[in-house]
Amino acid sequence: MAPRKIIIDTDPGQDDAAALLLALSSPADLEVVAITTVAGNVPLSLTTRNARVVCEVAGRREVKVYAGCDRPLKRQLVTAEHVHGKTGLDGFEVDEPTMPVEAAHAVDFLIETLRAAEPGEITLCTLGALTNIATALEKAPDIAPRIRELVMMGGGFFEGGNITPAAEFNIYVDPDAAEIVFKSGIPIVMMPLDVTHRVLTLKRRVDRFRAMGTRVGDAMAGWLDFFERFDVEKYGSDGGPLHDPTVIAYLLRPELFSGRACNVEIETLSPLTVGMTVVDWWQVTGRPHNAHVMREIDAEGFFELLTERLARF
Amino acid sequence: MAPRKIIIDTDPGQDDAAALLLALSSPADLEVVAITTVAGNVPLSLTTRNARVVCEVAGRREVKVYAGCDRPLKRQLVTAEHVHGKTGLDGFEVDEPTMPVEAAHAVDFLIETLRAAEPGEITLCTLGALTNIATALEKAPDIAPRIRELVMMGGGFFEGGNITPAAEFNIYVDPDAAEIVFKSGIPIVMMPLDVTHRVLTLKRRVDRFRAMGTRVGDAMAGWLDFFERFDVEKYGSDGGPLHDPTVIAYLLRPELFSGRACNVEIETLSPLTVGMTVVDWWQVTGRPHNAHVMREIDAEGFFELLTERLARF
Amino acid sequence: MAPRKIIIDTDPGQDDAAALLLALSSPADLEVVAITTVAGNVPLSLTTRNARVVCEVAGRREVKVYAGCDRPLKRQLVTAEHVHGKTGLDGFEVDEPTMPVEAAHAVDFLIETLRAAEPGEITLCTLGALTNIATALEKAPDIAPRIRELVMMGGGFFEGGNITPAAEFNIYVDPDAAEIVFKSGIPIVMMPLDVTHRVLTLKRRVDRFRAMGTRVGDAMAGWLDFFERFDVEKYGSDGGPLHDPTVIAYLLRPELFSGRACNVEIETLSPLTVGMTVVDWWQVTGRPHNAHVMREIDAEGFFELLTERLARF
Amino acid sequence: MAPRKIIIDTDPGQDDAAALLLALSSPADLEVVAITTVAGNVPLSLTTRNARVVCEVAGRREVKVYAGCDRPLKRQLVTAEHVHGKTGLDGFEVDEPTMPVEAAHAVDFLIETLRAAEPGEITLCTLGALTNIATALEKAPDIAPRIRELVMMGGGFFEGGNITPAAEFNIYVDPDAAEIVFKSGIPIVMMPLDVTHRVLTLKRRVDRFRAMGTRVGDAMAGWLDFFERFDVEKYGSDGGPLHDPTVIAYLLRPELFSGRACNVEIETLSPLTVGMTVVDWWQVTGRPHNAHVMREIDAEGFFELLTERLARF
Ligand SMILES: [Ca+2]
Ligand SMILES: [Ca+2]
Ligand SMILES: [Ca+2]
Ligand SMILES: [Ca+2]
Repeated sequence: MAPRKIIIDTDPGQDDAAALLLALSSPADLEVVAITTVAGNVPLSLTTRNARVVCEVAGRREVKVYAGCDRPLKRQLVTAEHVHGKTGLDGFEVDEPTMPVEAAHAVDFLIETLRAAEPGEITLCTLGALTNIATALEKAPDIAPRIRELVMMGGGFFEGGNITPAAEFNIYVDPDAAEIVFKSGIPIVMMPLDVTHRVLTLKRRVDRFRAMGTRVGDAMAGWLDFFERFDVEKYGSDGGPLHDPTVIAYLLRPELFSGRACNVEIETLSPLTVGMTVVDWWQVTGRPHNAHVMREIDAEGFFELLTERLARF
Repeated sequence: MAPRKIIIDTDPGQDDAAALLLALSSPADLEVVAITTVAGNVPLSLTTRNARVVCEVAGRREVKVYAGCDRPLKRQLVTAEHVHGKTGLDGFEVDEPTMPVEAAHAVDFLIETLRAAEPGEITLCTLGALTNIATALEKAPDIAPRIRELVMMGGGFFEGGNITPAAEFNIYVDPDAAEIVFKSGIPIVMMPLDVTHRVLTLKRRVDRFRAMGTRVGDAMAGWLDFFERFDVEKYGSDGGPLHDPTVIAYLLRPELFSGRACNVEIETLSPLTVGMTVVDWWQVTGRPHNAHVMREIDAEGFFELLTERLARF
Repeated sequence: MAPRKIIIDTDPGQDDAAALLLALSSPADLEVVAITTVAGNVPLSLTTRNARVVCEVAGRREVKVYAGCDRPLKRQLVTAEHVHGKTGLDGFEVDEPTMPVEAAHAVDFLIETLRAAEPGEITLCTLGALTNIATALEKAPDIAPRIRELVMMGGGFFEGGNITPAAEFNIYVDPDAAEIVFKSGIPIVMMPLDVTHRVLTLKRRVDRFRAMGTRVGDAMAGWLDFFERFDVEKYGSDGGPLHDPTVIAYLLRPELFSGRACNVEIETLSPLTVGMTVVDWWQVTGRPHNAHVMREIDAEGFFELLTERLARF
Repeated sequence: MAPRKIIIDTDPGQDDAAALLLALSSPADLEVVAITTVAGNVPLSLTTRNARVVCEVAGRREVKVYAGCDRPLKRQLVTAEHVHGKTGLDGFEVDEPTMPVEAAHAVDFLIETLRAAEPGEITLCTLGALTNIATALEKAPDIAPRIRELVMMGGGFFEGGNITPAAEFNIYVDPDAAEIVFKSGIPIVMMPLDVTHRVLTLKRRVDRFRAMGTRVGDAMAGWLDFFERFDVEKYGSDGGPLHDPTVIAYLLRPELFSGRACNVEIETLSPLTVGMTVVDWWQVTGRPHNAHVMREIDAEGFFELLTERLARF
């Protein structure tokens, strides 16, 4: 079977880096058509830099990287240097990347690629705010039915939020974009905090990356050590959640996850709850299902997959 | 030590009935100064009837019952006959109550009683929408600092809501009243769905009420059998949550519970999330603490207490 | 014909004073059953003082004055000392009033009086925020159909707002109360800024009060001179609008006014537009009529009436 | 002096047609770089058709027409066939246009043209919803400071709204886009209903177009006869308002207009007031000026200009 074609929209971030490495490690399963970058964890110039840093660490300088929107649709950009460090990818020393950024805007690349491909050929993986996807949908609504599936890291429900009591960071950064995406009719698989808070970067897990003795293993270990600091302090847990690689893991081994089809609405009105993903898990409203919301993950299986694949570099 | 003086504001409801019986069972610990009724699970005329039904089942016809507000501050009344049955107290046959309803309005009773008592003498226990308390606070803001503590069943956070994905019934019925109460400065202890969904009416637990061979035991068993139907079907669980008696149990045995001081804000703006209690459990905002929010309960200890006390009738 | 029975709910304010004097000047037409006070232009203690100041200036110490709510239903009190001066009634020297304040709360007085009167016997005149009326409606919804008519100064539409671009002060102070009143089914006559900005305190008009050579005339002239300062500076007009006496003038000479039956909704959600009275003047929505909204006034006729009646003191 | 370069963004509409004709009539003053179309009065396919109809009626088949966004950023498209007729341009028989639509998307054309031009070289004239402009600003925020001025027909304040009591049609169709534009820092001149309701299509004025004896004159007369029907019935006026040509008239003869610099905010939150342009005309907030809001127009001078210029065809 031919590998599944994916475009990864991302705002690296250490956990985005883990997701990108997982995707790039598995060419027999996944063809990374391109990486598109968006403002989020850090400004666009840095997320675009960091996407290329990861490609170079992976030895994959030929991957296409397109820069996208540098701010949310309607709001000021909120960033998360308090979590990710000043560069967004603190924790492992690298040289500045030298591979090119493509000339086209990520939004135009998305539209043109989806129009040129067969319907159902391309899967979108989103690891940050949904600004690029929403802007593409605004300019070219005809692309929505051409997307096979959009697998996103975003939202939270039984776990609450992280940037506010009610909102998870990716959705909070651009709730207006999220609303557009959740109303688009695209088949959505959602990896909320309910999933990602079950896969913690325990020391024994990170040590396995370090033990690989490779540049990729060292990078992962360094990035994850830095990344977990904030959450370990906040939650008092042993290791921090590893959000974004769950998206790629789902494409490789969906049987690690379970969830259910639900209605999901995005709060955009109230300052108190803005950015919340209101998941009708118990089906108490009559609203239509628009997402498959994951709630359970086999944490050991997930780390086994991540370790096995990263060892391939 | 003199028993603690409480006023119970309630909209019975089978679980309110359990709470009232628990309070009336324990005169050495709790002096029920009065019961005030409010519209909620069923209209005011029925909640006022049901409060007196419970007093008569308990053989306590001398308890003062005051009728209060018959609708929320600003919204249409939403009721829950689909859960509680047509009378609000379906499940056990009783004669219509004959004990009197006091002449005064519950709001005036609350104001006069709190003004006449020593500061810190009276504890409020609320088992329904907060309309009576909020209306009293509007008319007489001076009563707020005279209240020892307000222990409420209401809200939910990690458990989500029940009447909507985001909102628990008591808060949803009158979010505007809840907002007034949470901004009043009264010391609040909150029993959310996070607590009440941990105390399920398992068959072995209900059987112990039935086995008492008393009218109170039969009533409890009949009411709880009826009450759990809705939630057992919805959640697929073995037994339903028993909400309101947690409030009284807390006054009798606070060591059964654990939680933390938090900021709690009430969503009143957005149709999507209205009635939500936004709990800053992880202290990510700088907003001041205004409630002690419970999250854990010793379920066996709770049912042990309830069974032991109800056996006293 | 017996005089029409009115209760005046007010937050004096110089223009409230003019309204009170106009009402008290006309015993053959209007029986002032009582004055109820509310927080608004200045805090409750001052509005209650000022209501009695006006009664004493009018030589009517026997009028009943009841103090009401000291804050809005759900929001912080906003006052307007920048318009009315520190006392709320700056501009004319008076001794502190010595006539009594009634013991009962204005809300209870309203409920009891309306219940004791015949249906349709009592008219409410509101010159401030609607907190007292809304609180009475919450406690006793049965009073709504007993009210003959509620004539209010409040809102604005083609004139915009005054305290914000969208909101007039009386509604802005307690929009939640206004929403309750506009949804109550009480027949409402509304005097918005569209009317009151057409009756300006031109010098020639104020001079006629001064020329009366009476204490009432001197008081009116002094108060109006002070009151117009703010608006004269803001609008660059010759004299300021005289808001509240339009309510009493309507009861005395309704033919001075014209308007139409409309739907009026109160904005309570959005920080930008909160307190706005959204008037469907052109009937573009299907929403039901709930107020008679005045737009035109015979300004000369109005001042003629005011001058003629105040000369009676 | 070289003619001023303008791009006209439009959703014709009979009054858009009048604006386009006025612009095309004046090549010594205005160079129409292109016309971009957007969904609004009617769907995009029809507004794109109608723009070309007008060019062909004007004998200007060489004008570039670019099609833009076919729906608002976040909401369902609302159209106004009840005003403009089924085609959006009912009232004058024409053949289907044969001149081409350019291949590029209007959004990309805007971005590329503004980037290629000197800063301050291009003026935008918007006659419909602001979806194209907002989408361009999202994709390419760097274009904002390159725009000389944006002159828009939209909003209303002392006149209220037209599609709802609070909102004018162009802003109501895409309030989220309007918010983006008003926050962009672009110098804005706003022609609200307050202006356009002062220029009525009186019979004597329309007769002058008909009397020209030209195809352009006949078209104008036919379109305006059709267009005024709705407003004449609604307002009971003699002739309807002529909205969009005020934008072009301002560029030709700014001395016909007067207004003031204000803060303007767009309501996007509340269903009751969504789409309202909240204009701080009296400067009661401290919010910064972001638009020059017109309120007065010399109606005779305006029609004189329109008649004189259209006679040139
Ligand atoms: Ca990310
Ligand atoms: Ca209850
Ligand atoms: Ca007043
Ligand atoms: Ca138009």
